[in-house]
Amino acid sequence: MEVLERIDAVQKRCEDLRLSGKTLGFVPTMGFLHEGHLELMRIAKRHADVVIVSIFVNPAQFGPAEDFDRYPRDTEGDLEKARSVGVDIVFLPSVPEIYPDGYQTKVSVDRLTKHLCGVSRPGHFDGVTTVVAKLFNITKTHIAVFGQKDYQQLTVISRMVRDLNMDLDIVGVPTFREPDGLAMSSRNAYLDPEQRRSALSLKKSLDLARHLLEKGERRAEEVKKAVEGLILSHPHTAIDYVTLCDPVTLEDVETLEAETLLALAVKVGNTRLIDNCLLGGASKNEDIPKQKGQRE
Amino acid sequence: MEVLERIDAVQKRCEDLRLSGKTLGFVPTMGFLHEGHLELMRIAKRHADVVIVSIFVNPAQFGPAEDFDRYPRDTEGDLEKARSVGVDIVFLPSVPEIYPDGYQTKVSVDRLTKHLCGVSRPGHFDGVTTVVAKLFNITKTHIAVFGQKDYQQLTVISRMVRDLNMDLDIVGVPTFREPDGLAMSSRNAYLDPEQRRSALSLKKSLDLARHLLEKGERRAEEVKKAVEGLILSHPHTAIDYVTLCDPVTLEDVETLEAETLLALAVKVGNTRLIDNCLLGGASKNEDIPKQKGQRE
Repeated sequence: MEVLERIDAVQKRCEDLRLSGKTLGFVPTMGFLHEGHLELMRIAKRHADVVIVSIFVNPAQFGPAEDFDRYPRDTEGDLEKARSVGVDIVFLPSVPEIYPDGYQTKVSVDRLTKHLCGVSRPGHFDGVTTVVAKLFNITKTHIAVFGQKDYQQLTVISRMVRDLNMDLDIVGVPTFREPDGLAMSSRNAYLDPEQRRSALSLKKSLDLARHLLEKGERRAEEVKKAVEGLILSHPHTAIDYVTLCDPVTLEDVETLEAETLLALAVKVGNTRLIDNCLLGGASKNEDIPKQKGQRE
Repeated sequence: MEVLERIDAVQKRCEDLRLSGKTLGFVPTMGFLHEGHLELMRIAKRHADVVIVSIFVNPAQFGPAEDFDRYPRDTEGDLEKARSVGVDIVFLPSVPEIYPDGYQTKVSVDRLTKHLCGVSRPGHFDGVTTVVAKLFNITKTHIAVFGQKDYQQLTVISRMVRDLNMDLDIVGVPTFREPDGLAMSSRNAYLDPEQRRSALSLKKSLDLARHLLEKGERRAEEVKKAVEGLILSHPHTAIDYVTLCDPVTLEDVETLEAETLLALAVKVGNTRLIDNCLLGGASKNEDIPKQKGQRE
């Protein structure tokens, strides 16, 4: 496994690989890798000859009051894990390598970022799309793999890829969960044992919503109330948002007629966690959706 | 010469050419081609095996009160001219091909676009960088050629290329002029004979500034006054800006110590014209600067 820190080195290596006829698969991460990340890498490996992983805690996607400084980091452990699943190249840049003096360019997606996490994290998605556009240009990848836990991120990046005519495919992978249902996240490391129990309320509330839908409930407001009630019945929880929306436009829905996204952001103690599920329609479809800029 | 209207067709053709080892050169235009454009194509031909030209009047870079609707168009004439200089592929997309329903992504460069034309044409450079990013992704070019008449555009695009790690080189080409000195521009077609004579005031004022510098003048304010006086002594002229600034940051200068950019935007009748020259320093260097995202 090659570990490269310089943009030029990665870009040249990837261009040479492309010219030699190899297909490239890319998994961008902020490190502190867990099984969810490793699953993305395994899936990249299935789709491509060469797998590239980036590890970069991107300051541009953290707000001033957010956890950039204390975001968990474990480079040695990350490299070991990446090696164990057969990653070929790890790109490990410094912050000034990505944002040198004089840097001043931004890639932004408009309407999709006005919903869900875009409301409480202004600028977050601009940071995400900008760094991901850079990473796509650096790695020249044929496919890039993202988790569906960050559903809005997947949607926004797919939109960017399509709008900017980036010649690559985005692969979305179902959320990887702990045995008790908690969605895997590097931020789970922040939770103490009691908060860890309260964090289960997110997945439980998704299950409750599915149950209500099965019993015939179609009013978004009623589902939302039940979800919020369940979450708030757990200690240390505060709701950022509980939203039922169109899975393509992310615009709120009032009734659950077509397939609907239920998305949650919940603070457990000081830790902000997100989770989501699709309700109705294709939500039973467990296949991995392969999309070229959401070209469904 | 191939003429292609679909993004997919151009992208596939260009990817195949890259994989076959060809180098690609690209000249983006808004059509109504003149000798200045053809010179860019000839220079692209010298740098690359295959030359691609796009012809697209980009609505996103026109303000609501600007001349998008009446911008001159002559597709048949353009194709004839492109063929005459050995262009290999012309990309001729429709507006919905470039901006389909649901389109919502923008590429923007921050500080460089706050000066010069960015002041009187808000949003203009976002429109330019967005469409050029798309065209670079579509054509997968190794080099792209731009005229120095649009000096700020060249600077902003070079910054975008560097900031987003686009793997291509930007080539800037000195302004092509009519025999009497008027910088070539598709918008010159708007001028009636009397306005055409007044339009010469732009080039004359650049020459005057050079003359003042040679005579020892170093105060930007004095040079600016002389330039404005000369322009306004011609009928039908109104000044948008006359600016003396740093050629890299585009920030105003007070004294002409290092190399300085003199940039003008002047309305002649209803037609907005621009011109510029470098004063001092490397301004005597007539070589074509080849820059990779301004990696001077």
